[in-house]
Amino acid sequence: MKAKAQASSNKYAADIFSIGEAEERISSYIHKTPVLSSETLNSISGRKLYFKCECFQKGGAFKFRGACNAVFSLDEDQAAKGVVTHSSGNHAAALSLAAKLRGIPAHIVIPKGAPKCKVENVIRYGGKVIWSEPTLQSREEVAAKVLQETGAVLIHPYNDGRIMSGQGTLALELLEQAPQIDTIIVPISGGGLISGVAIAAKSINPGIRILAAEPKGADDSARSKEAGRIVTLSETKTIADGLRAFLGDLTWPVVRDLVDDIIVVEDKEIVEAMRLCYEVLKVAVEPSGAVGLAAVLSNYFKNNPISKDCNNVAIVISGGNVDLDVLWKSLN
Amino acid sequence: MKAKAQASSNKYAADIFSIGEAEERISSYIHKTPVLSSETLNSISGRKLYFKCECFQKGGAFKFRGACNAVFSLDEDQAAKGVVTHSSGNHAAALSLAAKLRGIPAHIVIPKGAPKCKVENVIRYGGKVIWSEPTLQSREEVAAKVLQETGAVLIHPYNDGRIMSGQGTLALELLEQAPQIDTIIVPISGGGLISGVAIAAKSINPGIRILAAEPKGADDSARSKEAGRIVTLSETKTIADGLRAFLGDLTWPVVRDLVDDIIVVEDKEIVEAMRLCYEVLKVAVEPSGAVGLAAVLSNYFKNNPISKDCNNVAIVISGGNVDLDVLWKSLN
Repeated sequence: MKAKAQASSNKYAADIFSIGEAEERISSYIHKTPVLSSETLNSISGRKLYFKCECFQKGGAFKFRGACNAVFSLDEDQAAKGVVTHSSGNHAAALSLAAKLRGIPAHIVIPKGAPKCKVENVIRYGGKVIWSEPTLQSREEVAAKVLQETGAVLIHPYNDGRIMSGQGTLALELLEQAPQIDTIIVPISGGGLISGVAIAAKSINPGIRILAAEPKGADDSARSKEAGRIVTLSETKTIADGLRAFLGDLTWPVVRDLVDDIIVVEDKEIVEAMRLCYEVLKVAVEPSGAVGLAAVLSNYFKNNPISKDCNNVAIVISGGNVDLDVLWKSLN
Repeated sequence: MKAKAQASSNKYAADIFSIGEAEERISSYIHKTPVLSSETLNSISGRKLYFKCECFQKGGAFKFRGACNAVFSLDEDQAAKGVVTHSSGNHAAALSLAAKLRGIPAHIVIPKGAPKCKVENVIRYGGKVIWSEPTLQSREEVAAKVLQETGAVLIHPYNDGRIMSGQGTLALELLEQAPQIDTIIVPISGGGLISGVAIAAKSINPGIRILAAEPKGADDSARSKEAGRIVTLSETKTIADGLRAFLGDLTWPVVRDLVDDIIVVEDKEIVEAMRLCYEVLKVAVEPSGAVGLAAVLSNYFKNNPISKDCNNVAIVISGGNVDLDVLWKSLN
């Protein structure tokens, strides 16, 4: 069933106007990332694919869009005390970089076991690292403590209107670069990216299809859509380290209303998609970033009646921060 | 010493007019490849770098520009009998693809030991593979035999005005995308790419600096420049499998006159550049494609007085066809 396009109303934490403002606010800081295509991948998938390569964004992921919008939205007094967040890596690096550009401190709570390259990005951009246990609960507790000690502003990785608006700028760019697209496939985790993209894209073109791609080992969004309420999991198990978060109360309504379907894929499909990105597209993609290509190549999608109308499909490659030895080990 | 800019004269096998015609001929077939940048790499190199990513070109390398121009330059009668070439891989794949687009056969002589992914590209694009020994002599002999048997047209990988003109279209695109560049660093092997780029770039902006990057284990071009005549080597030894050819009589005069300097780098510098491309730029680059970044980071370049005026430096990433296990093994 086609999701209702109510994108321009003010019922969500972001709308086309806040996304337009975000674009104005951040455009001089971000990279306009290219859209790549490959005849080989078109031929394998049986449709035209447009890869929006956010792996080339500053910090190596789309997260810089939202972080930059959030940091530059703060008034002087708020900004002076700095920002805090907890994140497995990409949001953390993005927030560190945005804070550095504004000249304010960034306190970053990182769960133990986060990918090395993501932690290195945080340090390179001048973020102050505070370690937590790898659970969401521990991340939130440590962050709360840092908040109290510093008086800094919490910038949640996704459940925040400023973040959702910033991520939505990706869709404005994409629809300008490839106006012919009829479908956008977006990785889903906490829902910050897909909610911004869905609001922006459906505001401009209400007929566009928004599909989420999610790993089987963290399929809380698919379960949430089915249950009609936010479902969380007691544990997640997937190679896609950036897709283990759960929907928030601000992102969920958008996912519920504007996401047309969720395609769940196995880790082995994600690994195969990473290999194709590397070998055919010549792009370094992290597991979370490869889930959209995995989705379009999956049997679930091919057998889904919706796929017949998906002729010009944009795939958001959300990030490229993958340790080379992790890539190598997963491929073997 | 500044090389003399006589690019628009007709003393070379290509000129700005043949390059302009090539652009018209091939523009509907090729990808306009993006120019990427990275603050991290700017900071490491101490200047602004602009990466012209021909790894995203069809066939995974710049070679498709020249091959496409050559194939679509043939008249109907010539074309009908097909084309022949010998190549370690990228030109071979490119020629196969161009021939496929024109609907004519491509006979490809490939030296044993060529990278697997490059051979696979040839097969994927419908080229007919004929194996030779890995020496240039054997490649040429086998190609001559195929020519005789088929009556097809030989398309040399670089020593051909149509090829040089096609490769030159890269510079037209680049100068439109990043008009502020003052220097272009180009990998050098047979000289097809750099001669086309030098002619196009210096025709548009005579003050632009053209630097070649070459691996130490195949430094025939640097020796040629020094000797003032084409120098060949009895053997070459470098990880950069695409940079083992020698200058031809059509490319040499352009290299002699229009290339301002040649920067020679060690294989270990090439491998480090590949790692940076992968980890920072998020791009899969083959060893031959990474030699330009290796050059700009080399001590030779940093200590060269010329480098003081190189503030906006374009680096041509010539191709991305690297087997993942080769990359992995070189990095460890």
